[in-house]
Amino acid sequence: MSDGALKSYLKRRKKIVDDALDGYLPPETDYPSVIFKSMRHSLFAGGKRLRPILCMAAAEAVGGNYSTVMPVACAIEMIHTYSLIHDDLPAMDDDDFRRGKPTNHRVFGEGIAILAGDALVTEAFHLMSDRTRYDGDAAEQIMSVIHAVADAAGVRGMIGGQVMDLVCEGQTVDLETLEYIHSRKTERLISVSLHAGAVLARAGEDELAALADYGMNIGYAFQIVDDILDVEGESSVMGKDTGSDEAKGKATYPALVGLAASRIRCRELIGNALAALENLDERAEPLRGIARLIIDRKA
Amino acid sequence: MSDGALKSYLKRRKKIVDDALDGYLPPETDYPSVIFKSMRHSLFAGGKRLRPILCMAAAEAVGGNYSTVMPVACAIEMIHTYSLIHDDLPAMDDDDFRRGKPTNHRVFGEGIAILAGDALVTEAFHLMSDRTRYDGDAAEQIMSVIHAVADAAGVRGMIGGQVMDLVCEGQTVDLETLEYIHSRKTERLISVSLHAGAVLARAGEDELAALADYGMNIGYAFQIVDDILDVEGESSVMGKDTGSDEAKGKATYPALVGLAASRIRCRELIGNALAALENLDERAEPLRGIARLIIDRKA
Repeated sequence: MSDGALKSYLKRRKKIVDDALDGYLPPETDYPSVIFKSMRHSLFAGGKRLRPILCMAAAEAVGGNYSTVMPVACAIEMIHTYSLIHDDLPAMDDDDFRRGKPTNHRVFGEGIAILAGDALVTEAFHLMSDRTRYDGDAAEQIMSVIHAVADAAGVRGMIGGQVMDLVCEGQTVDLETLEYIHSRKTERLISVSLHAGAVLARAGEDELAALADYGMNIGYAFQIVDDILDVEGESSVMGKDTGSDEAKGKATYPALVGLAASRIRCRELIGNALAALENLDERAEPLRGIARLIIDRKA
Repeated sequence: MSDGALKSYLKRRKKIVDDALDGYLPPETDYPSVIFKSMRHSLFAGGKRLRPILCMAAAEAVGGNYSTVMPVACAIEMIHTYSLIHDDLPAMDDDDFRRGKPTNHRVFGEGIAILAGDALVTEAFHLMSDRTRYDGDAAEQIMSVIHAVADAAGVRGMIGGQVMDLVCEGQTVDLETLEYIHSRKTERLISVSLHAGAVLARAGEDELAALADYGMNIGYAFQIVDDILDVEGESSVMGKDTGSDEAKGKATYPALVGLAASRIRCRELIGNALAALENLDERAEPLRGIARLIIDRKA
């Protein structure tokens, strides 16, 4: 897949996800209006939709149809968005901007921002468990997917990472702890996006294992690139203050092992991710393209 | 059911729920320890376990076994607890005490308190979707229950109520808005506890309708009693500051219609609740007892 083809693919997919999210979420005119405005403010703040696109691509890589995974793909994006809203709160990272826009609590106040996060995570499970949105015989697969998503998003996954991120702020952190934080905060939700798409498309054990391997590697690479960009990226491209991790006394991968070693590690991880897909056919091309793109991303 | 028998029944049931919750939740020694301590601080802060007990009683009232509904019963208690943690935050009600104990953020700080709430709601869906905890052919029922719980807890339910409660603080509120807040904040989660227990016990349509009617009536009565107790209760019994709704400029039912009319309305609602159960047999006795108890409660 050429760079141009990948770019056009991602653009089309982002549009499909945006439209689906818009359809799933109640309109701003619903009562009480302020909470729907707040949820939509963050959900439509220009996210790249990486997780839902991976979920759809995983379903297709194992021979499924992306349309059958849309509720789960969009639910995972809602969970990702809720985690950003809560992460930006004054009691957490205290960020004023995200993707170039004022953060949720800066616009709606802390109380509504907390509730908008709560509403998005609950809406995610509401959407995933909506039986009418799936085919007839999928209840067992859907339950297993809901459980996997809750595991990845919960205290054994993303929230565990957030907790350690908060606890370790301003402290010296060793590589083991940093890897715990990174894998939980970022990798688990990326991995489960692939897993969920594949399970709903009735993937075999080998395919699930390959996608798990791929997900673990790109998820971790994604977080290292995030750290590298925080050190060297331009604020105007990132849409938030760069160097903010350092200012907050947060450990980053480059701070622990150096920029050069971070870049080498990233390339290794992406190499592993591509190797994991070697038994999948050309339907996995978008996944291969996305893996390569992670190293090249600028924001 | 005599008062003594009911009291003893509730005590035994509370113990069963406490033990089940303890078993479902990872121990405090798990990593990262602080989040499990924080979750357990609020989950084991002396709650009456009304919602899980209603869920179990509903299953039994329609001929089922309470043991089959324990994951859902306990998940609803986790959701109730998360809502209290977030509700007590400085950006929301800003309460220092709950059930006589310091609130979560007073002990663990705001950041961990937000994450403990997030963790509990996610854990609730993790628990409900754990296929290994149910019988063989229940996937359709479980999915329908997860969807109903998410609906009751989300923006169309509990969170919608919290939003209007926050938005209306310090404002003049009419009876219609107050009833919206009360029904969403309290009644929806109580009603879905009964619904979930009955669905998992394979209740018929008539039984579900009777329990929905019962739930709506006791749920609303429960909130009115809460308001009455806030006006006249003793702080030492309630374990929190009484008169705090008034101090915060919050609308209450007695403030809008008067104490005497509030008490009359409560008795009407309980009468309706008992009438709703008239076609259920003696297995619904605990539900009848709980309805009567709601009027008589002191805290």
